Amino acid sequence: MEALSLSEKFALVSEHWRPKVVAQLNGQELKLVKFQGEFPWHRHEREDELFLVWRGRMRLEFCDRRVELGPGEFCVVPHGVEHRTCADEEAHVLVLEPEATRNTGDIVDARFTAPSGVRI
Amino acid sequence: MEALSLSEKFALVSEHWRPKVVAQLNGQELKLVKFQGEFPWHRHEREDELFLVWRGRMRLEFCDRRVELGPGEFCVVPHGVEHRTCADEEAHVLVLEPEATRNTGDIVDARFTAPSGVRI
Repeated sequence: MEALSLSEKFALVSEHWRPKVVAQLNGQELKLVKFQGEFPWHRHEREDELFLVWRGRMRLEFCDRRVELGPGEFCVVPHGVEHRTCADEEAHVLVLEPEATRNTGDIVDARFTAPSGVRI
Repeated sequence: MEALSLSEKFALVSEHWRPKVVAQLNGQELKLVKFQGEFPWHRHEREDELFLVWRGRMRLEFCDRRVELGPGEFCVVPHGVEHRTCADEEAHVLVLEPEATRNTGDIVDARFTAPSGVRI
């Protein structure tokens, strides 16, 4: 049990779209992700996801709407809902979801699918 | 699915130590709590808890150490570990834990035990 810093942890992340686990609890993982550009459309069969913006701005796109998130704003994407994440400029985002969730959900993408469980 | 703001949600919280649920996902709840003073010593039999400071400073006290947390700092308290939370001045804190977790864990306190599942 120790104090961990979001800013210090984000400083360790050099890649876009590749989640890094900073905490595990109750079968869930708190992950830090740097977003830039557009992520592929996908859905998660069973996993709900929470996105909370720490720095910058991001956009959640759904089939019928867009949700814009700035610093200190958050949104839950329920399981089964198709979505993609976008950021016109680099955004630092906290993601909360179950352990071993594949970042690209029901698809596998050579560029975007990242290894799960990578801790920093 | 909508954008929710931590600052706007915290502005709705007028009481200290009484968690307000702002998101539910995967059987977990994201709660906002305003800390001020000292909370009773307790432990949670089965629930891990994550504390993330949004504004102000707080302190996690354990039997053998203290962990100081400022804005953007976080700490996980594993289940079974006796602890108490303290804040010399008001602190705004995000707490992540399973649904229906009692805030005072294994104790019931007339002043501090709060209803669970209160949404804002």
